[in-house]
Amino acid sequence: MCRWLVYTGTALPLKEILYNPTHSLIDQSLNSTLGATTTNGDGFGVGWYGEGDVPALYKSVLPAWNDHNMRELSGHVRSGLFFAHVRASTGTPVQQTNCHPFRHGKWLWMHNGQISGFQKIKRDLMLAIDPKLFSCIEGSSDTELFFYLALTFGLEQDPSAGVARAVGYIEQLARSHGIDFPVRMTLAVSDGQNVWAFRYASTGQAPTLFYSASSDELRLQYPDNPVFAKLSGETRLVVSEPLGDIEGVWTEVPESSYGVIQPGQDDLKSFKPLLS
Amino acid sequence: MCRWLVYTGTALPLKEILYNPTHSLIDQSLNSTLGATTTNGDGFGVGWYGEGDVPALYKSVLPAWNDHNMRELSGHVRSGLFFAHVRASTGTPVQQTNCHPFRHGKWLWMHNGQISGFQKIKRDLMLAIDPKLFSCIEGSSDTELFFYLALTFGLEQDPSAGVARAVGYIEQLARSHGIDFPVRMTLAVSDGQNVWAFRYASTGQAPTLFYSASSDELRLQYPDNPVFAKLSGETRLVVSEPLGDIEGVWTEVPESSYGVIQPGQDDLKSFKPLLS
Amino acid sequence: MCRWLVYTGTALPLKEILYNPTHSLIDQSLNSTLGATTTNGDGFGVGWYGEGDVPALYKSVLPAWNDHNMRELSGHVRSGLFFAHVRASTGTPVQQTNCHPFRHGKWLWMHNGQISGFQKIKRDLMLAIDPKLFSCIEGSSDTELFFYLALTFGLEQDPSAGVARAVGYIEQLARSHGIDFPVRMTLAVSDGQNVWAFRYASTGQAPTLFYSASSDELRLQYPDNPVFAKLSGETRLVVSEPLGDIEGVWTEVPESSYGVIQPGQDDLKSFKPLLS
Amino acid sequence: MCRWLVYTGTALPLKEILYNPTHSLIDQSLNSTLGATTTNGDGFGVGWYGEGDVPALYKSVLPAWNDHNMRELSGHVRSGLFFAHVRASTGTPVQQTNCHPFRHGKWLWMHNGQISGFQKIKRDLMLAIDPKLFSCIEGSSDTELFFYLALTFGLEQDPSAGVARAVGYIEQLARSHGIDFPVRMTLAVSDGQNVWAFRYASTGQAPTLFYSASSDELRLQYPDNPVFAKLSGETRLVVSEPLGDIEGVWTEVPESSYGVIQPGQDDLKSFKPLLS
Repeated sequence: MCRWLVYTGTALPLKEILYNPTHSLIDQSLNSTLGATTTNGDGFGVGWYGEGDVPALYKSVLPAWNDHNMRELSGHVRSGLFFAHVRASTGTPVQQTNCHPFRHGKWLWMHNGQISGFQKIKRDLMLAIDPKLFSCIEGSSDTELFFYLALTFGLEQDPSAGVARAVGYIEQLARSHGIDFPVRMTLAVSDGQNVWAFRYASTGQAPTLFYSASSDELRLQYPDNPVFAKLSGETRLVVSEPLGDIEGVWTEVPESSYGVIQPGQDDLKSFKPLLS
Repeated sequence: MCRWLVYTGTALPLKEILYNPTHSLIDQSLNSTLGATTTNGDGFGVGWYGEGDVPALYKSVLPAWNDHNMRELSGHVRSGLFFAHVRASTGTPVQQTNCHPFRHGKWLWMHNGQISGFQKIKRDLMLAIDPKLFSCIEGSSDTELFFYLALTFGLEQDPSAGVARAVGYIEQLARSHGIDFPVRMTLAVSDGQNVWAFRYASTGQAPTLFYSASSDELRLQYPDNPVFAKLSGETRLVVSEPLGDIEGVWTEVPESSYGVIQPGQDDLKSFKPLLS
Repeated sequence: MCRWLVYTGTALPLKEILYNPTHSLIDQSLNSTLGATTTNGDGFGVGWYGEGDVPALYKSVLPAWNDHNMRELSGHVRSGLFFAHVRASTGTPVQQTNCHPFRHGKWLWMHNGQISGFQKIKRDLMLAIDPKLFSCIEGSSDTELFFYLALTFGLEQDPSAGVARAVGYIEQLARSHGIDFPVRMTLAVSDGQNVWAFRYASTGQAPTLFYSASSDELRLQYPDNPVFAKLSGETRLVVSEPLGDIEGVWTEVPESSYGVIQPGQDDLKSFKPLLS
Repeated sequence: MCRWLVYTGTALPLKEILYNPTHSLIDQSLNSTLGATTTNGDGFGVGWYGEGDVPALYKSVLPAWNDHNMRELSGHVRSGLFFAHVRASTGTPVQQTNCHPFRHGKWLWMHNGQISGFQKIKRDLMLAIDPKLFSCIEGSSDTELFFYLALTFGLEQDPSAGVARAVGYIEQLARSHGIDFPVRMTLAVSDGQNVWAFRYASTGQAPTLFYSASSDELRLQYPDNPVFAKLSGETRLVVSEPLGDIEGVWTEVPESSYGVIQPGQDDLKSFKPLLS
């Protein structure tokens, strides 16, 4: 599968989050402890909001731990909202067009998990995508089609409903092809303002997902890190697996639920696939 | 556009053809003289028949002139039938899954030219492909869809008819989207036994295509090359542009025609798109 | 050879300079008109001053015209002093450690041209480098050794003298190996504050080098570009070849001379190799 | 560290050895069980004797498990003597010029382990290399310098003595820099006829090394593999770790020893560094 991370809060050089923590995402690319695979070396990507109307993307087919450019960039690019993803391919080619996060306008999307039986239902999934969006598809991964399906089902108007309808559609379609439990996911979506993070599996056993409850706890976890000393109270991390092992800092997102990180009070709600 | 080459005849190390001639395909990757672009540096590929049930592929996103592995392989791999292609992308991403030649079972396929308005008709083209072949599509290029369309239309049973029907379908579809002259191509296809080479454009002005009429002429062109001294009379090259400039060696394939290189007498016939 | 560009002045997104001009550096990677080669497709690099104590580097072995990440970054990274370089290798491998610009602490260095007979004198050049700097060498190119030789000869204390002594040393060493005219160069160096740009060849026939005399002239060249409307009077470009063809904007740097771009009045002086 | 494999015997498609065994080298690139690191994803290489005067090389900076070209080649290239190596960098850049095996004329060389304190002694090591060989150095790794040092010390005349003198030299040099136990290695060398395989560490605790005692035992291990049924009695494998777990097939090479695989009776001797 994969490992991913969303950071939102006080603008920081990316490396403070991507490289500096003990069990950073870059470390997880080589030594994941909670993932389906230890190694997540099939390319990676980051997307960040900052300069420009749309978020920036940097993607590479090299393992994250080997990419010099990523190391350089992360020390020189500062952002208050970014996505990072290390990939373990579930079968589709290792190429930049299959690296997460995916972008459509101001939206970013990344995924851990898979759509089982994807090759069997791929054609029908493509047909379900709004023809006006069709030419935006660049790669061949399940995640990208999932994204455009959610866009087709109204992601931009109502992110949680768009995702719920896309998952419902995939489940219905897969079952008609004899695949009973097709969806396994943690998912992050953002419009540059809010972040939506989902945890769900058709079987009820989704990959792990955690969030940092407050920046006070980050300060507790990294007392010697002068950067965290300056974080605003709105700062949050959502991660596939904790970046360190201090008790009490990380809260697991429950099965079949999603969180919304937004200005003011964040939200945690239950998630259920919708049939259109 | 692109430049390509087919060699068939006495088994040779690939480098004898790919690197040694004055204006070799590798040289054409940097200095094409007859192509739409001087530089064909957007990846490349070779496919060769030899060991194994299906032809082998080697593809790279680097410019051919820089690829050390290709240089190594071409000195150590010997084949009596191989395809080579240097790419100048007409828009789709530079990734191995978009490099020519494409393979399906024992079949190889490569293309120079483009399908105009491809992004507009891509979805409909995909729908026209036999659903059983759909999951074989790995990349996002016009050429690969064209290949699976021809397979859908019977390429394996009758190569020239399969290509003619695919071209006819594309022209009809494109015109219904307001694209009057969609197809511009030279095309090579093989099943490991025969080679079919097509030259056609909807406008009547296709890219150039040449063949070497006989190995006697190759010996004439490269009198000092001890390799060519040993070539059988059946040895042929088909190329986007001549590998050298000796008069009389290269014959241009006429517009709207195709050749068949086969055991015994080769064939040159006129080509016309077919409507199914 | 290569093509390069230095920008210094009002902070801009890199793309305004790297992609937007008619005959931009990215265009020169494919279509150089004044260089020794038309194509500069053997990797590239950018270095920029901004966030962080040392300048950032982004390097790639792909041709610049094909690198998606560069296109992304250049729209999202803003800098008031940056180097960019597209490479045409003169023999050393195409790998990131051979891409320009090179960095040592706060210093950036890039080069167009070559050291003739480099393989013959490489060992002696390495021996001449300060042993304390030796382990900083990462690649195998002539340019990187040239850089560490100049650092050995005092570049950080007096850039023009450091370069003059390095060139003098190389010429003397090369002549003792029977190479009469070893150095051919345009060279850019910066400490993040000033920029030094050199043009010199042992033969007296160096590659071309140009500078934009003032931002008034840039505004003249790109009247419709709202970005240039805001440039400070200190803004300067130094380039291997002009980014456009409006008369009067670009001034050629004379043979055997160097310029210093600095706060206040810039300087143009004659350059002469020094023997230590 | 790294994992490697030498095959010598009946000519086979490379994939029979590289991909088909349960715990193949490709599997070891992701899941090494006896190595210093689980993941060996920092590039890889193969070298094979066959067509041509010198062995062929194929190298890649991608992890071996992701390289499509390697998978293709290994099904289509047949050799009776080949080297394969998956790399876990100990610090030097991941680039093709640092991938093993290294080649000089007809010689191949590959290494698992490292030279401790390499950056401290690198300059002196380079100086110890025969100046006539100096310009052959292409990369920046400890292993390549070790190879040219052994060539300097007579590897081509007497391989075990050349290696013993190189190790002796490195140990003496390192100790003069305060590094007491610099060498840790398993090493494979071939001239295309014989194979020499060394296991040694300055501390007395070298990485593991195994050989298959006879092709009878291979047949025992893979009873269903029709390929192994045809292997000659001279067929041997030397590996960093066993390709499967059947008792009795693999024999560990003792510490401080080396084996010679040659026509007729193979040899196993003790290894001791030599001071010149």
